[in-house]
Amino acid sequence: MRRIIYYVATTIDGYISGPNEDISRFTASGDGVEQYLDDLKAFDTVIMGRRTYEFGYKFGLIPGQLAYPHMKHYIFSSTLRLKHCEKGLEVVNLDINIVEELQKEEGSDIYLCGGGEFAGWLHENEMIDILKIKLNPILLGQGVRLFGNSTKPVNLELISTEKYQYGLQIITYSINYIT
Amino acid sequence: MRRIIYYVATTIDGYISGPNEDISRFTASGDGVEQYLDDLKAFDTVIMGRRTYEFGYKFGLIPGQLAYPHMKHYIFSSTLRLKHCEKGLEVVNLDINIVEELQKEEGSDIYLCGGGEFAGWLHENEMIDILKIKLNPILLGQGVRLFGNSTKPVNLELISTEKYQYGLQIITYSINYIT
Repeated sequence: MRRIIYYVATTIDGYISGPNEDISRFTASGDGVEQYLDDLKAFDTVIMGRRTYEFGYKFGLIPGQLAYPHMKHYIFSSTLRLKHCEKGLEVVNLDINIVEELQKEEGSDIYLCGGGEFAGWLHENEMIDILKIKLNPILLGQGVRLFGNSTKPVNLELISTEKYQYGLQIITYSINYIT
Repeated sequence: MRRIIYYVATTIDGYISGPNEDISRFTASGDGVEQYLDDLKAFDTVIMGRRTYEFGYKFGLIPGQLAYPHMKHYIFSSTLRLKHCEKGLEVVNLDINIVEELQKEEGSDIYLCGGGEFAGWLHENEMIDILKIKLNPILLGQGVRLFGNSTKPVNLELISTEKYQYGLQIITYSINYIT
């Protein structure tokens, strides 16, 4: 079974973006960001929700285009309509069975990109194996929470922690929903 | 000027306790907790809000008693009434001038204990110099937030990060409200 890895930038107070999708305070350069980009090369599949996909439009992504050219994309949404989709991009329903089917396919671990509500839905369904946070040295006080509106508590296991430039840390936890 | 150091246990999603003051998932033993207790010895003064002080009652604290016998206590509250106070404990009004006066006194750095609303009030008033989090490997999903209802964003500077038993990390940041 392929693992689902939620690899995401967070703040000390648990936000993945500020209000109005503002990420201007997040560290956008340095060796921690390079490490993240390098780590992404290992994934052949990415899953995300509609909001995360559309967030890419702000940075020049064209609707239907692959955000990460080397990955197969599955955008989970019941409302997103795309006129043209590049080969390798599919819009699929919010259905846990689809996620489970993806996990059974051959390939690398699955990159859960973005998060918020979609990550919360996967979390509520106990589907996330690894949480890898790029812990930014900032407080935002409000915005999009790491797991959206999910209130599900869980204990994690610390796997590794690395320190990078500009106070960024990449901290990896495994999630064991059974304990 | 004495610095105010907010030294507090948090979760990956930015909570200092769960609903109903539940802290049962937080790491309560191991070398990280010992480090914390050892670090507390350096403080001669503690400030806290009413809820944090009263939270101690659950663990045997008697109203009016010092929670940390070697520290002077200032409980900031306009509603707390204590019949008998041990020497060294004072209930004072929520008044920033009082905090500033404390900072001007001779002595060690000041320990900001607990937090939530009181920490949020100090944060809104740009009074916290150091944020030292005991980052627990847990998600709570709900509860008391690190800075209560404050929505004030701020950039921090990473000073140090240390890894301890049971996946606990103690991470120290300085807060510079000017940048």
